[in-house]
Amino acid sequence: MPEPLSQEMLRKMDAYWRAANYLSVGQIYLKDNPLLKRPLSIDDIKPRLLGHWGTTPGLNFIYLHLNRIICEHQANIMYVIGPGHGGPGIVANTFLEGSWSEIYPALQQDYEGLMRLFRQFSWPYGIPSHVAPEVPGSIHEGGELGYSLLHAYGAALDNPDLIVACVVGDGEAETGALATSWHSNKFINPVTDGAVLPILHLNGFKIANPTVLARITQEELESLMRGYGYNPHFITGDDPAVMHQQMAALMDTVYAEIRAIQSHARNNNDPGRPRWPMIVMRTPKGWTGPKEVDGKPVEGTWRAHQVPLDGLRQNPEHLKMLETWMKSYRPEELFDEQGHFRDEFAEVAPKGQLRMGMNPHANGGLLLKPLELPDFANYAVETPEPGEVDAEATRVLGGFLRDVMRANLKARNFRIFGPDETASNRLDAVYQVSGKRWDAAMEPNDTDLSVDGRVMEVLSEHMCEGWLEGYLLTGRHGFFSCYEAFIHIIDSMFNQHAKWLKVTRDLPWRKPIASLNYLLSSHVWRQDHNGFSHQDPGFIDYIANKKADIVRIYLPPDANTLLSVASHCLRSRHYVNLIVAGKQPAPVWLNMEDAIRHCTQGLGVWSWAGNHDEDPDVVMACAGDVPTLETLAAVSYLRSHLPELRVRVVNVVDLMTLQPVEEHPHGLPDEDFDRIFTKDKPVIFAFHGYPTLVHRLTYRRTNHDNIHVRGYKEEGTTTTPFDMCVRNDLDRFRLALDAVLRVPRMKDKAKAAVQAFTEKRQEHKLYVSRFGEDMPEVRDWRWSKEGSSAEKTSLDTGGDNA
Amino acid sequence: MPEPLSQEMLRKMDAYWRAANYLSVGQIYLKDNPLLKRPLSIDDIKPRLLGHWGTTPGLNFIYLHLNRIICEHQANIMYVIGPGHGGPGIVANTFLEGSWSEIYPALQQDYEGLMRLFRQFSWPYGIPSHVAPEVPGSIHEGGELGYSLLHAYGAALDNPDLIVACVVGDGEAETGALATSWHSNKFINPVTDGAVLPILHLNGFKIANPTVLARITQEELESLMRGYGYNPHFITGDDPAVMHQQMAALMDTVYAEIRAIQSHARNNNDPGRPRWPMIVMRTPKGWTGPKEVDGKPVEGTWRAHQVPLDGLRQNPEHLKMLETWMKSYRPEELFDEQGHFRDEFAEVAPKGQLRMGMNPHANGGLLLKPLELPDFANYAVETPEPGEVDAEATRVLGGFLRDVMRANLKARNFRIFGPDETASNRLDAVYQVSGKRWDAAMEPNDTDLSVDGRVMEVLSEHMCEGWLEGYLLTGRHGFFSCYEAFIHIIDSMFNQHAKWLKVTRDLPWRKPIASLNYLLSSHVWRQDHNGFSHQDPGFIDYIANKKADIVRIYLPPDANTLLSVASHCLRSRHYVNLIVAGKQPAPVWLNMEDAIRHCTQGLGVWSWAGNHDEDPDVVMACAGDVPTLETLAAVSYLRSHLPELRVRVVNVVDLMTLQPVEEHPHGLPDEDFDRIFTKDKPVIFAFHGYPTLVHRLTYRRTNHDNIHVRGYKEEGTTTTPFDMCVRNDLDRFRLALDAVLRVPRMKDKAKAAVQAFTEKRQEHKLYVSRFGEDMPEVRDWRWSKEGSSAEKTSLDTGGDNA
Repeated sequence: MPEPLSQEMLRKMDAYWRAANYLSVGQIYLKDNPLLKRPLSIDDIKPRLLGHWGTTPGLNFIYLHLNRIICEHQANIMYVIGPGHGGPGIVANTFLEGSWSEIYPALQQDYEGLMRLFRQFSWPYGIPSHVAPEVPGSIHEGGELGYSLLHAYGAALDNPDLIVACVVGDGEAETGALATSWHSNKFINPVTDGAVLPILHLNGFKIANPTVLARITQEELESLMRGYGYNPHFITGDDPAVMHQQMAALMDTVYAEIRAIQSHARNNNDPGRPRWPMIVMRTPKGWTGPKEVDGKPVEGTWRAHQVPLDGLRQNPEHLKMLETWMKSYRPEELFDEQGHFRDEFAEVAPKGQLRMGMNPHANGGLLLKPLELPDFANYAVETPEPGEVDAEATRVLGGFLRDVMRANLKARNFRIFGPDETASNRLDAVYQVSGKRWDAAMEPNDTDLSVDGRVMEVLSEHMCEGWLEGYLLTGRHGFFSCYEAFIHIIDSMFNQHAKWLKVTRDLPWRKPIASLNYLLSSHVWRQDHNGFSHQDPGFIDYIANKKADIVRIYLPPDANTLLSVASHCLRSRHYVNLIVAGKQPAPVWLNMEDAIRHCTQGLGVWSWAGNHDEDPDVVMACAGDVPTLETLAAVSYLRSHLPELRVRVVNVVDLMTLQPVEEHPHGLPDEDFDRIFTKDKPVIFAFHGYPTLVHRLTYRRTNHDNIHVRGYKEEGTTTTPFDMCVRNDLDRFRLALDAVLRVPRMKDKAKAAVQAFTEKRQEHKLYVSRFGEDMPEVRDWRWSKEGSSAEKTSLDTGGDNA
Repeated sequence: MPEPLSQEMLRKMDAYWRAANYLSVGQIYLKDNPLLKRPLSIDDIKPRLLGHWGTTPGLNFIYLHLNRIICEHQANIMYVIGPGHGGPGIVANTFLEGSWSEIYPALQQDYEGLMRLFRQFSWPYGIPSHVAPEVPGSIHEGGELGYSLLHAYGAALDNPDLIVACVVGDGEAETGALATSWHSNKFINPVTDGAVLPILHLNGFKIANPTVLARITQEELESLMRGYGYNPHFITGDDPAVMHQQMAALMDTVYAEIRAIQSHARNNNDPGRPRWPMIVMRTPKGWTGPKEVDGKPVEGTWRAHQVPLDGLRQNPEHLKMLETWMKSYRPEELFDEQGHFRDEFAEVAPKGQLRMGMNPHANGGLLLKPLELPDFANYAVETPEPGEVDAEATRVLGGFLRDVMRANLKARNFRIFGPDETASNRLDAVYQVSGKRWDAAMEPNDTDLSVDGRVMEVLSEHMCEGWLEGYLLTGRHGFFSCYEAFIHIIDSMFNQHAKWLKVTRDLPWRKPIASLNYLLSSHVWRQDHNGFSHQDPGFIDYIANKKADIVRIYLPPDANTLLSVASHCLRSRHYVNLIVAGKQPAPVWLNMEDAIRHCTQGLGVWSWAGNHDEDPDVVMACAGDVPTLETLAAVSYLRSHLPELRVRVVNVVDLMTLQPVEEHPHGLPDEDFDRIFTKDKPVIFAFHGYPTLVHRLTYRRTNHDNIHVRGYKEEGTTTTPFDMCVRNDLDRFRLALDAVLRVPRMKDKAKAAVQAFTEKRQEHKLYVSRFGEDMPEVRDWRWSKEGSSAEKTSLDTGGDNA
């Protein structure tokens, strides 16, 4: 076994590691006496002991050895920490290397600084206990486990000089997201992307259990990693001196392997999938901590997970053990009297932006360049009259995205992500410019695959989301399209990302990143063919629970509004933008000029569609493409069956306009809302999602008692598109009935209309069961302005609120 | 290579397979002319062609060969189909074996039956296109991919005679859930559980892309499966005659391996983890379908995924190709003139309950036995006065669950599931009776692990959920505890299960199964130590979107109500029950008698806690343990600072009581609701989750304009428990302020109180930042009846609505 470290270097590195461990323990326990200059007293101890010791010494060990490689090779390395609850370790390291004080000048490397460092940790109005956004160099909190390796791969894409070292906890390795993440190596191009170095940290235990990967045979574990396509290297032990030499040697090996792979690929322009190295590091949980407490083993067991010694107030023995433990790191060797980390050790760390705490990739906003965006209006569908022309909205968008892709090919900072659904969602025009990334075997009949493709497709929503997050967090742009129902698979990942965005908004040193853009298509109303399992519009509700300054929800009713919304989202920063749009041929309602106006306002009266805008009996509102279609059809039926009914049509694109302006920055002021929805007229609201969401957004509005919402009520199966509407009472006949029945002055006149609409619904049911498709009256229905305001007045297709 | 099939048997089996394939194609395409007695005409073709051909012939092939093993060994085998969109195949097979007609007598094995079989498929008011609940023998729809192997393992637990054959699609294999599922073999006891036979079906393509596992080297794939702990067997080919022999031989091999493993384990009582066999079957996608259409290859490519030939109406050539394709199966050999499947082929299938369509495990309600439940009242915390005694609610529940476990040990039909959190959630008393299932290596310091344990722990919410679903669907009982925030990881799995429950409620032959019971603990208000990433109460909202006849949501305010609720949930059937409860020491408010009464009503006035129940100025409502504590503390402060304010206290356990009775069977009738919440008094509602949920549940109630809700508003970090409340405006002082400010008649009298409460909040902030813990006034606060109704009248702790 080579011993690459001189005795001098070994001494320094071990001292550095001890310092990091010492500061980690100090953060968990102490609020005073940071250098143990006087005997530890209970008054030095925090009242609540919060933090995770178990993983920390291992994280510190890896940090140290990465530092050595960085210094030796001036390597550009960032550190993604799966066991992100090991906050004290990363805080300690970024403090020792000076990043912390640079970002937070109030905390300097002196006695006072150490005191504050310890005290702030897990302290109210201090810093969180995990590797939170507050921690320099982090793009990954790791509170919820499973996403580290995906974030690492996302960061490595299009960053050929970057090595992303990613610690995967053996607990985390049991999660679904992580288990499939290993396959990311089939999507990395060794010529144009950076490298990911996975380090599986087998410390053997989770909160309360051993880990699976620590308890299978070495042969199985090696097979597993080789099966995933890696070249695994193992390091096992607990003697620091031995482990430092072994780890240094191993780091040299894997660094050389990575560079050899890259040199080969780049010199020979051979992007063929290499067998990337990875490390399996087996060290004791809570390494260097108390071996035994109260007669029970702690180091090397799950008992070391959080705070190995507690009850210090009641148990002076434990207090003494803590002092012994902390002194075992020999703080007096490490820090001078003033609390300054001694220079001879500090010099082991890299300088400037090479410090992992200061790597600009980990503060992606610093590197972010705006996308080059073609004018979306150029992709407009020509619409001489509302509803005259059909278009597949997402296919139209695909043309725009293709050119966004083209315009940014050189910058290499835009990618499209999708779980095997890009073509199904009809965005396949992008393949004309860039293929689907694939670095596994190819076969003659394959189409649109490319080892340099910028479309990321794999049948895992987790992988798409995780890669995209990693890509965005390191300062690039992306677009994720997904079947609406199955986006729930990454509910929790979205949740964690939204939390990250919320916290980083308030950290001035963290620069804004590009928004996370979701396009949900193949949505609930057009999953008639795949059936009930594919029908769920609930992601909207989920998003709406997050902080208003983070989330945006758009329901463009047609192709032109989709273009306008999508372009806006691609320009935006630090949001989560949710767009729901259909892929089937559907009427285009607005020409581009009106579409832009409508989207800018977020909602508006479609005066061309109503027949009596000024003083309506009823407001027919809609949000979503299918609800808009059904509403306009309902309005047509109303006009022909009951022309004296005065109808105003309102369409909502930006759902957050429904909320009060106090709740959401896009919220419409109450007086505007009242003008549009009236103060006292019935509102029949056809909504894409679950009806309750509209109620919850509008419950503070003047007229909310009169808002009657139709939407998805969890009814569905394999059937026809129109039958989906009927089963959920969102169909044109039901909406027309709703309108008629809510207007008292129509009571007597409406009987024939009510009968007609009711019969239509029955007729439909008989027709579809008999013929297996929607009745021609529905299929062939076209909007006609006959009897509408558009016929009566000069055409104004705009969504003018005034 | 052995050739186990006689020529006669080969002929029959191939005929059987052709029949299944024929019927599969017929279902996708035909509405008439089922035996092609006359030339195929466009009028025979369905107007909409829906269905998935690609995976179907492979599924049929496996079905056939499993049938042979069943017949040969009278083996008890069930079939879980990951590529569940291959509906036509499973419908065809259950039809051929007679299961379909037995369950749906309207559809017999004759000409008329064939016609109906074809026509009903993917037809409105017919049957769905996937292996939906309507399909006999299925426990797994597979609309959303990833959960098949987990369902299979869940089904195998405690069913020692059962073999669950599970087809994993190579698309599905890319999902996170599936990628980690392979490790389930470390949780199977070969003595007491059944076997799972995974069959990875490499048909090479997803909707539009090749699959990862089909494009790595054979060596990698084999390593991967060995790394997962299996003994992989490979079968590759496309020549039916050869493949039949090979598959028969392989099935013999793996069946023998399984039985050998089981014999060894059972004869020697050696539950050590064996290397279970698994199969990798590589056959062309759309095997036996059109090779090429319009000059493009179809068989063996992603183009075979759904409907290989379309546009038949416009393209007579395609129609002809369809006829040729269907005739290639030689239907006249397979069916007689009357459409009856010829006996010589039909006899290849098993009989009675051995048919996979009739396996009772796949209709779990048939096998379900009620749990033996001890009387939960025996576990009551003694409460001489409300709030006098503290208890850790989940720990108290743990005692009850331990004895539920004990009482059902012999029946082997109850398991507890948790992602490494059972002890953290303080349910560890169950280990006294049964350990944590573990069949990987054990070490001397391990605690509570057992190869026969009935507690399933692994750091994957997906695995816990999937196993539990499989266990429930096959007629057993379970209980899943999870950190509240991270249950979102399985949002989508819950969603699919809820859909399954909804559909099966309406299928009389599907008997009700045990409810899916979630206990969410370590909840948002007590994740002060882990910080923002661990704080999310949104699962409640998510659940509330599902059908009212499926979901129940409980927020027991203390240990005794938790006992009552949990016992009720364990007795219930065919629901998803969500319970949210804390694990920290907290006051017990109700003695058991009152707890039962309160839970039975679902909500109620706590007259002992108010000071003027009959004619209140304000209603202080609460749902959830922390909101209840804060409300009662607020009420105390109000009594001491403003005794003339008349307060009524209402507590809600069963959240669905808030909804109108028309919306949910638990909904309170309006007149009762009005009596409790008044028609016109301000209601200050302290809620566990996001405030909007209460608004959305109550928006139709008379007094909803007066309901002011405090709850989680997405503010949090690592801090103290009380600071969590303050940051989200749920703290006692804010609630007291809310009450005071909403009562106009207090305007002048309340100034001092307003000032006092406002100052308290500021005092708190200063205190926690200085001392790192909550101020003693808050920590030490105890409920006192001084000034309350309880002091004035004889104590009535009941939640009497009257």
